[in-house]
Amino acid sequence: MFGNVEQAQNFLESVKSGRFLLSFVMSYSQTCEIPGITIAGANSESMKYTPPADAEYLHYGYCKTIDNIPMTPDGKPTPALLTKTALESASIPHLTINAGSKITPQLPFIETGLSFGKNISVEPAMTDSEVSSAVEFGRIVGRNMASLTDCLVIGESIPGGTTTALAVLKAFDFDAKTSSSIPTNPIKLKNEVVDSAIKRIDSDHPYSVLAKVGDPMIAFVAGMLSSASAVSKVMLAGGTQMTAVLAFASKIGFNEENTAIGTTSYITNDQNANFTNIVKQIADIPAISVNPGLNNSKYSGLKAFSEGFGKEGAGAGGSIISSMLKTGNDSTKFLNLAEKEYDRLSSLSES
Amino acid sequence: MFGNVEQAQNFLESVKSGRFLLSFVMSYSQTCEIPGITIAGANSESMKYTPPADAEYLHYGYCKTIDNIPMTPDGKPTPALLTKTALESASIPHLTINAGSKITPQLPFIETGLSFGKNISVEPAMTDSEVSSAVEFGRIVGRNMASLTDCLVIGESIPGGTTTALAVLKAFDFDAKTSSSIPTNPIKLKNEVVDSAIKRIDSDHPYSVLAKVGDPMIAFVAGMLSSASAVSKVMLAGGTQMTAVLAFASKIGFNEENTAIGTTSYITNDQNANFTNIVKQIADIPAISVNPGLNNSKYSGLKAFSEGFGKEGAGAGGSIISSMLKTGNDSTKFLNLAEKEYDRLSSLSES
Repeated sequence: MFGNVEQAQNFLESVKSGRFLLSFVMSYSQTCEIPGITIAGANSESMKYTPPADAEYLHYGYCKTIDNIPMTPDGKPTPALLTKTALESASIPHLTINAGSKITPQLPFIETGLSFGKNISVEPAMTDSEVSSAVEFGRIVGRNMASLTDCLVIGESIPGGTTTALAVLKAFDFDAKTSSSIPTNPIKLKNEVVDSAIKRIDSDHPYSVLAKVGDPMIAFVAGMLSSASAVSKVMLAGGTQMTAVLAFASKIGFNEENTAIGTTSYITNDQNANFTNIVKQIADIPAISVNPGLNNSKYSGLKAFSEGFGKEGAGAGGSIISSMLKTGNDSTKFLNLAEKEYDRLSSLSES
Repeated sequence: MFGNVEQAQNFLESVKSGRFLLSFVMSYSQTCEIPGITIAGANSESMKYTPPADAEYLHYGYCKTIDNIPMTPDGKPTPALLTKTALESASIPHLTINAGSKITPQLPFIETGLSFGKNISVEPAMTDSEVSSAVEFGRIVGRNMASLTDCLVIGESIPGGTTTALAVLKAFDFDAKTSSSIPTNPIKLKNEVVDSAIKRIDSDHPYSVLAKVGDPMIAFVAGMLSSASAVSKVMLAGGTQMTAVLAFASKIGFNEENTAIGTTSYITNDQNANFTNIVKQIADIPAISVNPGLNNSKYSGLKAFSEGFGKEGAGAGGSIISSMLKTGNDSTKFLNLAEKEYDRLSSLSES
């Protein structure tokens, strides 16, 4: 635990015996199409399938919009494997929300009608009015979801998201270094993209700033947080992308007392990023980190997370924290369940 | 209360102190375009706007896809007014689900990707595979929703639905006379449509039968019931359309012990229909009826419900029952709240 430790303990204590609900928010930013900026999906063509594929995998245990299993050829699985393992071990329900994904998943999901974000290296991500409807729809969904649970866990899947997150944090003058899904974080490239995007900012209105350099996920999830934190506990489940949500939410307002951010130790230990420091700059809320113990895995594909591949995503960290609170499982037990799921998933490719 | 009274009391007792959640299922059947078959919406062109308009009204308190308020020129409001009054008086949350509506509402809703039903007087409503995906998606949504509440209340809005409901009940050999949104129920016309549709049945497989004479709402809600009743209490909120859901659900299986059907006394007292008798023929579950007391209203528009206009719809009956259980309100208190909402709604047309 980082930030205000007592706060974190109080937050965990207050949700321990309650009900959890994960909202899995799918989105897309064309920023991910900049060569070399992400590995969320093998190439710029396949990346748009990552959010729906993750949603389908979380839901069915396999994907429908892609034929293969959500795993790289050398056996590195999607972080959604950690999310799925966590949710199932604690029977935590989840709902899929489409907030600008380029492809819709083949399962029932909450539709918002939002369009995907543009490539911030060449043009504004959204119009101001697109930002305001994303926030408004986020508020509606957040109020709805919060009324159905005691702790609303919010995870995301948006290719290119760490770059737009970095741009948003910098645009709002936070000193930020964001994580990447690649161990060799392309910091130089990201900063070039971010700087060119920030040049487009021509107003200090938060909506206008986000429109120029952000993505629909940030606007939508910030809206969810602002309404949900008024009625229930909310745990933003993610790495530096969720700090960008927090940064924007701090401009539109939310209830800090009901809010925490939960992630994996692979994010909080990332030397290329400054996660906990960013959180502290933005808001006085607990930053909760969990070590999934994947470094002890017999599978190199799971071990990879602890070596900087993926690190986090699809709400993995927050879901693991929630599941451990509900079940009392420790990292060893969790690793065991994650390896079972890894076995099951791998076996699908053979069949 | 009708059917097994002790069962009904047990059901009410078991949900009284729990959490309620209304799923509002929007759909569409081209059967409503047969001249003279329905007044859900003034003419065949405007009827397709009724489900999204009701969803928007429930959500925002006003409509977005139509300019006017959901009320006939002579002041008869949508039955969703009763639903909204009930939900708000008891702070019962609701989610909108699109299961084949021709028009999508301007709010976040759960999308299923199902298409609307065809006019059963001229062609099959759906293909067998459309029925099976509707059931499958219903099962997924039902499982999801049930995990978020103690009692899942399911309401619907589908123009032309009482005719397809009649066809389904007859096709499954239940002796049924269904209600109508018109006091002078066009029974002769309906029976002609139903008989021509039933002639198309060429297999006794339930999916195939429903494909020929039903609608997507029936397939989807039956799927919801089958999975939801395994984990929580379920109240089908509606009139004879929900008995058709019950009829189909009895073919695919559901948990009777967790299931009840709730409606208004305007349905159970309808001399042109035999609601409680139909329920008894299908399943051993409680049929719960509430008198909203609208006959005592100072507004002819509200009184009209008690005189056979609308009678039920948008989950009104089940929502009123749920709200009275939760708040302890009686019909007088409810009528008072409904009249306040009627005032508010009417005033919107002036502004």
